[in-house]
Amino acid sequence: MIVIMQPGTPRENINTVVQRVEELGLSAHLIDGEERTIVGIVGLPLPPTLDEMFEVFPGVERVVRITKKFKLAGWDFHPQKTVFDVRGVTIGGEDVVVIAGPCSVESEEQTVATAKAVKAAGATLLRGGAYKPRTSPYEFRGLGERGLEILATAREKTGLGIITEVMTPSDVELVGTYTDIFQIGARNCQNYLLLEEVGKAGKPVMLKRGLSMLIEEWLLAAEYVMAQGESRVILCERGIRTFETMTRNTLDVSAVPVVQSQSHLPVFVDPSHAAGKRAFVGALALAGIAAGADGLIMEVHPNPDTALSDGAQSLTFDEFRALTPRIAAVAQAVGRGLPVPAAMPEPVGATA
Amino acid sequence: MIVIMQPGTPRENINTVVQRVEELGLSAHLIDGEERTIVGIVGLPLPPTLDEMFEVFPGVERVVRITKKFKLAGWDFHPQKTVFDVRGVTIGGEDVVVIAGPCSVESEEQTVATAKAVKAAGATLLRGGAYKPRTSPYEFRGLGERGLEILATAREKTGLGIITEVMTPSDVELVGTYTDIFQIGARNCQNYLLLEEVGKAGKPVMLKRGLSMLIEEWLLAAEYVMAQGESRVILCERGIRTFETMTRNTLDVSAVPVVQSQSHLPVFVDPSHAAGKRAFVGALALAGIAAGADGLIMEVHPNPDTALSDGAQSLTFDEFRALTPRIAAVAQAVGRGLPVPAAMPEPVGATA
Amino acid sequence: MIVIMQPGTPRENINTVVQRVEELGLSAHLIDGEERTIVGIVGLPLPPTLDEMFEVFPGVERVVRITKKFKLAGWDFHPQKTVFDVRGVTIGGEDVVVIAGPCSVESEEQTVATAKAVKAAGATLLRGGAYKPRTSPYEFRGLGERGLEILATAREKTGLGIITEVMTPSDVELVGTYTDIFQIGARNCQNYLLLEEVGKAGKPVMLKRGLSMLIEEWLLAAEYVMAQGESRVILCERGIRTFETMTRNTLDVSAVPVVQSQSHLPVFVDPSHAAGKRAFVGALALAGIAAGADGLIMEVHPNPDTALSDGAQSLTFDEFRALTPRIAAVAQAVGRGLPVPAAMPEPVGATA
Amino acid sequence: MIVIMQPGTPRENINTVVQRVEELGLSAHLIDGEERTIVGIVGLPLPPTLDEMFEVFPGVERVVRITKKFKLAGWDFHPQKTVFDVRGVTIGGEDVVVIAGPCSVESEEQTVATAKAVKAAGATLLRGGAYKPRTSPYEFRGLGERGLEILATAREKTGLGIITEVMTPSDVELVGTYTDIFQIGARNCQNYLLLEEVGKAGKPVMLKRGLSMLIEEWLLAAEYVMAQGESRVILCERGIRTFETMTRNTLDVSAVPVVQSQSHLPVFVDPSHAAGKRAFVGALALAGIAAGADGLIMEVHPNPDTALSDGAQSLTFDEFRALTPRIAAVAQAVGRGLPVPAAMPEPVGATA
Repeated sequence: MIVIMQPGTPRENINTVVQRVEELGLSAHLIDGEERTIVGIVGLPLPPTLDEMFEVFPGVERVVRITKKFKLAGWDFHPQKTVFDVRGVTIGGEDVVVIAGPCSVESEEQTVATAKAVKAAGATLLRGGAYKPRTSPYEFRGLGERGLEILATAREKTGLGIITEVMTPSDVELVGTYTDIFQIGARNCQNYLLLEEVGKAGKPVMLKRGLSMLIEEWLLAAEYVMAQGESRVILCERGIRTFETMTRNTLDVSAVPVVQSQSHLPVFVDPSHAAGKRAFVGALALAGIAAGADGLIMEVHPNPDTALSDGAQSLTFDEFRALTPRIAAVAQAVGRGLPVPAAMPEPVGATA
Repeated sequence: MIVIMQPGTPRENINTVVQRVEELGLSAHLIDGEERTIVGIVGLPLPPTLDEMFEVFPGVERVVRITKKFKLAGWDFHPQKTVFDVRGVTIGGEDVVVIAGPCSVESEEQTVATAKAVKAAGATLLRGGAYKPRTSPYEFRGLGERGLEILATAREKTGLGIITEVMTPSDVELVGTYTDIFQIGARNCQNYLLLEEVGKAGKPVMLKRGLSMLIEEWLLAAEYVMAQGESRVILCERGIRTFETMTRNTLDVSAVPVVQSQSHLPVFVDPSHAAGKRAFVGALALAGIAAGADGLIMEVHPNPDTALSDGAQSLTFDEFRALTPRIAAVAQAVGRGLPVPAAMPEPVGATA
Repeated sequence: MIVIMQPGTPRENINTVVQRVEELGLSAHLIDGEERTIVGIVGLPLPPTLDEMFEVFPGVERVVRITKKFKLAGWDFHPQKTVFDVRGVTIGGEDVVVIAGPCSVESEEQTVATAKAVKAAGATLLRGGAYKPRTSPYEFRGLGERGLEILATAREKTGLGIITEVMTPSDVELVGTYTDIFQIGARNCQNYLLLEEVGKAGKPVMLKRGLSMLIEEWLLAAEYVMAQGESRVILCERGIRTFETMTRNTLDVSAVPVVQSQSHLPVFVDPSHAAGKRAFVGALALAGIAAGADGLIMEVHPNPDTALSDGAQSLTFDEFRALTPRIAAVAQAVGRGLPVPAAMPEPVGATA
Repeated sequence: MIVIMQPGTPRENINTVVQRVEELGLSAHLIDGEERTIVGIVGLPLPPTLDEMFEVFPGVERVVRITKKFKLAGWDFHPQKTVFDVRGVTIGGEDVVVIAGPCSVESEEQTVATAKAVKAAGATLLRGGAYKPRTSPYEFRGLGERGLEILATAREKTGLGIITEVMTPSDVELVGTYTDIFQIGARNCQNYLLLEEVGKAGKPVMLKRGLSMLIEEWLLAAEYVMAQGESRVILCERGIRTFETMTRNTLDVSAVPVVQSQSHLPVFVDPSHAAGKRAFVGALALAGIAAGADGLIMEVHPNPDTALSDGAQSLTFDEFRALTPRIAAVAQAVGRGLPVPAAMPEPVGATA
């Protein structure tokens, strides 16, 4: 940590900083420049709020933290990329993974039909919401446990592993009896008690980035999960909030290589929530894969015009089927694969 | 609601929209312009996701919702400003209210001393965190129930009502046995199950604005609380996240008059979290009051250099004591008051 | 245009709006809903500030403009995609175009060497700054006309067409005698007199998006150029300013499909300025092409460690040579090509 | 400057940095921590792009610049606050200054009437646009030189000094023959050639903050003007662009104390452009003064409903007249004054 003193600070102010550093069992190194003095603080471990503390000392202009605040999520303590398996699907491996399904689980028929359709088109995991966070209290909030049962049925009928959102600590146990991956939504990305609870539940966790979350804060949120023992965390970029209104959010595609430079965790892209409009979902899906994402999570619905949530950004079966070969082509272009599913003889959706 | 069709849309697409409107028991009015047709939809109640639904219909360019999504928080159904009492302090009334106290409750000594000091200087409610959401899992997270007990002790010794944060639904009952006002922090502003739980607990709720929350979303979050029966909601602007880094957040002082134009709920300003640096807290406090805020919530600490959280933005007792007369002067300048506390004979902090 | 009246507005306020509409030679259509009245305004042309005007009428809650403000840049009046040729290179056609070169022209040797290297690697146009807008007045601001001469020399030696920035109207004539494409930088994107001046100069124009420019504003800036007669405008997304600081800017990759949905103009991506760090440039270049961009503009330098500007985001020759085949692969995956240059017998850079 | 090396960087990479530092005639100090080495660079003057240069050296993780990039605008070289006089009005002094007038000069009658009205209400300088930057090429762009003449007439009739915008270097001479203060608009805040031109013209300059301008960039823009010899620069906060859409821009009221902590230059607030809606202008004006601004610049129009630009955010004469006593009251509350104009016997606007 570096403490930068203001120009012309009296020596006694500098001494106060040095003294406090030494009281903490750390050591201080002074650099006297023409204009000002800098105090370098060396020693481990640094208290996490040391920078805030020194920032208010008299004569201190600025404090620069050098060591990263996250440990478990970073490369320093885990030099291999995190790779793990979910129902036979490898996350973080050479192949990219496409997760698809409806925004909300609305009925068994809708969910199973979608599961079959997305599987036939190349998806290897099924998404679907049973508990839905909604901006307005007057909107559809999901089927709850009945939704989880339907997801399990869809898994049984298609073999696809499932991912579904959990919204509150007290639901973790129940959701965990059904799901293969916990999803933490953007609105709950700093719900730390929820993060800790899923971190104890023994299943992988997909952690969506919050609308205004710095990448460092996102990795610290992952750290909350990992500190409870769960190392299988997927980070999912789903758009941040900016001034532009022609898309629902702004996909920060740079987050993919930036996260990869900081962390060994797999990183996915959610083009559906980023775009907010069906017409732009395909371009963002391809951009995410080209940027190096380990996978995608997308919304697909048998009839988006009647969807109970997120209809505007959900792809139809036909649109999704037309997109996956393009995803596979881009994946191949960047040295990745997209595994093709075992042949399904019946026409897609025909027996839903 | 207005459905704007693309120029040159075939009549059959327009008919599909009209037909659907009528199926829903609503009525459609067409305006045929030179370039395009507009469909006005009239009738109540409009389904909350009707706009999303029509947005994906063929030929539809854009849908404009006219009625506001929030009801209970808005003026239409509640034409009087919300005013209520907390331990003898009127919130939303003519006088502005200053809430002050430490970021974290660290000890009885620190909390009681601060309570006495802020009361002597003009604060009429005490803030203090027993459960602290922290960006990193390695930071101090509050004393928990012991912190609540200390707050209760401080209330007993000073008569100040207390406000403290609750982070998760399962803590609502416990926190509610101590606190006078529930605080929902910025990170939990869209933790809807928590909002509903505090909405049932029979105590007023202060709802901080999220870092990237639209004002409409904030009012909808208030709506979650109010839909459970609790009408005593305070909205608190505490800075939004922008590109500027010289302050911790950017105080959106416009939120004060904007909220007042949309809602009857009292609105407060938190200059401490907005500024992030002690030196700027005073200016933001005064700006908030000048803009018409009903009150302030501020961080004060006996010795910010050793605070376990938010030291850099906490005022010292002396700084706070110097600020309140300036707040009172600005309040008076905009036609409000700041009540002066009953005389306290002993010197501030002397008996802590 | 739709004028939405507040609930319960007296009829006379509505009449005032209607009367004014009729004074303007337009016609008004009323929709009376349960809660409020909406006035639809029909007729052409609508005065450009009509929405602002009505917004301040008594009883008006909100005005919604329906027709787009841009005309020449939009699809409505120009249903074919804009395709044009610059020194034998087709912009907006089936193949993607890679423009590369140094941030600043520093010397003939540096520029010619870079031109040869980027040509050998697949670039078909050369970029280079002779006039550099710099945030600080104390930084290197380019070689001026000498820089233009060097660019012309590099063109002569390699056959690559050139693009260079013009910063002020009085330089347009001079820059135009050298350059093949005018570049308008992000800081000048709303320097309207400059836009008009380049619009008259008879050469294509690349218009970079401003740091906080709405896509609609960007298209209106293009409209300024086009209204002067120049239809060959390239829009270039180069990152917008957001709260995230791990990249210099945030590449809004969604801008590619969004612009394409609104405009017939070609759209490019500048991954160098978006990333700000060399390590992320490649991923963003590939993402841009995958999203459908018509081309890229990138910074390449023989020795970035000594570059006079933007060294941190400039690729070395080796890095650029390694990247172009990957760009070509992604282009092919999305149905585009990247033309391979005619064989150059001499080793890259050997004769610079 | 501090160069932070990555953990485990080989000694030879560190040596390369040190060697380069010494080649530049500076000296390097090493701090070896447990995890990594830090190189402190000392010596003056530091080349302005030194940080970028070192950022791309192998083994370098991050570079932290310590000295500020701006000199003339900062306190270090100018420890007194800048105070100057414009036609008898003191800018930056004890009293706050209210500048008011129409967005655009539309006619002599409109301008003179407004000048008289705002003077009668307490304004001491007149604003008015003769050259208007407009987002769309199809909007009214001002009367040009005729507008300047009208402003001069209004000055003659009222004695109010005038401020008007200049948009391009070639207009500086002409505008300078009329205006008392040059205004540089938000869109031109990084039009560096324009900044330099006004810096040579011998008149004070008001520099509006760009929509996405960091405060450091703003001070560097002031530095461009000051480096040409003009020290009378006013910084004007007029709202930044954020995600919130209920106001035209977001007034960053914190910019007032932040600028004051960094610079001796006077800082004003423009509540009209920040709010974008008349109803919120008053609250923002008061907030700006409470935060410590040296003055305000506001839009006032005899009949905003027919204004050729910015009608929605312009105050009527009555609204302005009702606001200035409130501004004066807040100014007094924070220890400033608002001078009352000499009595004007005729009724406001009566003789326009």
